[in-house]
Parts: sequence; C-alpha cells; structure tokens
Amino acid sequence: MKILVTNDDGIYSAGIAALADALKEIAEVTVVAPSEEQSAVGHGITMKYPLRVTKYHKNGNFFGYAVEGTPADCVKMGIRNIMGESPDLVISGINHGSNTAINIIYSGTVSAAREAAIMDVPAIAISVTSHDAKDFRYAGKVAKMIAQKVIEHGLPQGTLVNVNVPNFPENEIAGILVTEQSKAKWDDIYEKRTDPFGKDYYWLTGKLVEIENEKLGDQFAVKNKFVSVTPIHFDLTDYDTFKKMKSWDIEKIFNEKTN
Amino acid sequence: MKILVTNDDGIYSAGIAALADALKEIAEVTVVAPSEEQSAVGHGITMKYPLRVTKYHKNGNFFGYAVEGTPADCVKMGIRNIMGESPDLVISGINHGSNTAINIIYSGTVSAAREAAIMDVPAIAISVTSHDAKDFRYAGKVAKMIAQKVIEHGLPQGTLVNVNVPNFPENEIAGILVTEQSKAKWDDIYEKRTDPFGKDYYWLTGKLVEIENEKLGDQFAVKNKFVSVTPIHFDLTDYDTFKKMKSWDIEKIFNEKTN
Repeated sequence: MKILVTNDDGIYSAGIAALADALKEIAEVTVVAPSEEQSAVGHGITMKYPLRVTKYHKNGNFFGYAVEGTPADCVKMGIRNIMGESPDLVISGINHGSNTAINIIYSGTVSAAREAAIMDVPAIAISVTSHDAKDFRYAGKVAKMIAQKVIEHGLPQGTLVNVNVPNFPENEIAGILVTEQSKAKWDDIYEKRTDPFGKDYYWLTGKLVEIENEKLGDQFAVKNKFVSVTPIHFDLTDYDTFKKMKSWDIEKIFNEKTN
Repeated sequence: MKILVTNDDGIYSAGIAALADALKEIAEVTVVAPSEEQSAVGHGITMKYPLRVTKYHKNGNFFGYAVEGTPADCVKMGIRNIMGESPDLVISGINHGSNTAINIIYSGTVSAAREAAIMDVPAIAISVTSHDAKDFRYAGKVAKMIAQKVIEHGLPQGTLVNVNVPNFPENEIAGILVTEQSKAKWDDIYEKRTDPFGKDYYWLTGKLVEIENEKLGDQFAVKNKFVSVTPIHFDLTDYDTFKKMKSWDIEKIFNEKTN
C-alpha cells in the first residue's frame, strides 16, 4: 500500500512526523508538505508564482519533500510529479487544532484531503483538537485504523473522511462516532490596535458559538471526548434550493427580456 | 437596501467597478475589497498577521475600502467593522474568469459570498467566463436582476447563488438557466523549468476535462451561451456515506479496543 502524507502546519511539525511514523507500519509512505505553516489558507492553489520543491531531512535522515506552496499544491505536486502515480490513500495531518464545524471551510488540512478526493484518491484529514497538543501517538493509531477501514470499504468518488481526535490520553477517550459537520459558527471580533507610527491595524479573534445538543455533530462528539469521523464531499449544489429556484421564473423572464 | 460589494481580483479591477455601478441603481453600496489580487486563494482567512484597511479613491472620488487580506477577510471586516451591521445582500465579483465546476472550490470570489452566507447574509458570486473580459455591463445587469430576485424570494440559511455569465455581447446570450455544479475537473500538469541559478521550479498548468452532455451543469450552460445560476451551500456532510459508514463498525470496534 502507498500513502501520500501531507499537512498544513508545515513539514517540520510534530503532527506530521507522528502520522508518518504510524503509517509506516502498514504502508510505503511519501511525505510532501508545505515548507512553511499554511493554516487557514482554505483551498488555495498557487498559480501566480512557480512552485519549488526541496528535500527535507530530519535527524540526518530523509523525511520528505517540502513544497513552497499550499496544502492543495502539495497533493497535486505529490501525485503528479513526485510520486508520478496515484497512491492508494492520501492522509493530511495530524493537524494541531480541531477541524470541526465551519472550520472545515477554512482548513488547509481538510483542503489537502479534498484535493486528493478531487483527483479520485481516497483521502483522510486528521486533527487533534488542541493547538497545544504534544502527544500525537493515539491520533496516529486512529489514523492507521481509519486508513485500514477506508481501504477495506472504499469511499464514493469525491468523498473524504474528516477525523478529529480529542486531546486527551487514550484511556480517557470515550470511543469513536461517525458524525455530521456541526452547524456551529464563529462570532468574529476584530481587535483594533495602533502601530508605533499611528496607523490602525486589526486582529481577528472571536469564539465558536456552539449549538446545544447537536448530538450527531462533530463538535458535540469531540466535546464529549469521542473521536469524530465525518464523511464530507465537494458537491456544493444545494439541490433543494435548485428545485425552488426553478420556480423563481428567472429563466423565463430573462429569456423574454433579453432575446 | 444595503449591499456590500467585494471581489478577489482587487479593488482596482474593472469588474468590481461595473458591479458597484449597476447596483447603485437599486441600493446603497459599500465596497470592501482586497488591496491586491487574491485569485485562487480559496476560503483563506488571515489570522497570523493583522489586517490593515485604507480608503481607495478612483478618479478623485472615494470608491471603497481596501483590505490587505483575502476576499473572506473583506466580508468579515466589511460587516463587523466597516458597516457595523449586516447588509441586505453581499455580492462578490464581477470576477474576470469563470467559476464553474470544481473551480468553485478554489475561487476567492465564491468564498467571499460563502463567508457572507456563513454570517447569515444572502449572497451572490458573479463571474464573466473570460480572463480577458473587457465589457462588464451585461453582467452588471444580470447581477442587479439576480439581486432583486434573491431579495424577493430569500435564500435558505447557508445557501448562496453562484452566477456565471458567458463573455459574449448581450444579443448573443441564449438565456439564463438554473444549474447544478458540474462534475468537470482539471487535468493538472506541472511544467518544469530551470532558473538562471540552475534550480528547478514548476508552473501549474492543465485543462478542464469536461463531461459530455451534462445538461444540468453550470459548465454546459455557459458553453452554450447561457447565463448559469447555481445555488450552493457549505454543509459538506455526505449523508449517504454517513449512513454507510455506520455499518463499518468502527464505532463498536474502537470502543471495545480502547475501553
């Protein structure tokens, strides 16, 4: 089995090292990850600038390829140029910080896995729910288990699996739940400050406004110490609204007006 | 009616000027747009750096607020700090280049509208299908018409409307169609070059592989000179796979193994 490993925290981060270590027990692992942190870049790709690729060593040993680009760039480049073939699986992570609810939209970790799904490669994104996470061994075990399950059962074209692991010792984990993307959203606040030259600047802060008792949600699961496993896809069409909009009569009106 | 206008091509682009002009006929327009081009940034937001906001003038007149950030940053900043209240509508565009099929995922234009939808503000993304588009007047008329329709009918929470206008004179437009996101995807190629210092670099190129006779798709519509109007949302859960994964027995297996 061949697995391409990437992330958005950068190739030097502790999470990707733990992920590669765990997966080496079951697969031939190729690491292609951003040379710098790329958190909250969403599904950006690099087109205005060329990409550069360098070999990254850890403790004197070759660890993987560092790409001066986004997580989605790493997956494209990893599959098209570095591996030159589709791996059996792409796994992105282990992210330092949770990717539940609306954060999935902003997440570089998830967008890397989504890029793989677009390229018809089964994919998993995996995160630990704290930015201060130190021990990624349990999440590594989860990644290995979910990887084996995905290979065993397969995924529909265009679907990926988003995994969030609570930042607790293994013996405190309540279990694992298949979940939906929670509807929880951020209440943003821009904190205004003034620089030493008298000019204003703004920092984005805010808090995630949770929804009470959203029992099928990813956010509810991790809050209750469950590992959350959510299947997500990138068919963004809202089919209910599609049907309703047909009755807006814009098709008819506009044809009459313009032709 | 109050409308917040933004884009991803930058506040100085021709498309956003045409959009603001068209909408001023029906609403009080506030422009908040990136100070520099932000194409293909996806749904990035700025957290590692502070944001700066400056007033942008055009021909000596105040045009809008330039934000040193992403399209999604502009919407957050525009609503939370500059307007200080939710507008009736957010419209992002007019983008220079189409945002159909998988391009929706990479699009800064669409992500700005999506950010508005996340903030419970009805939103529209509008694009003209050529990077070389010069005349945005017809697309401006379309934006105005769709804006009025969205206000009249409303949109479900979390849904936005993605509009693509073929780059043809008004009298050659075939009509308007309510569509679905096409399944067409890019076949990427990285072109390898060598810099004057002997180091390799890679440019992303490729072509969109279209799907024959995808008659409900946005890509099919614009190819046939129809304006395409697609309702999209950000509930990414794949509910079919959710049900199937329940039978993977990962919940049961994992609870037994770990507890």
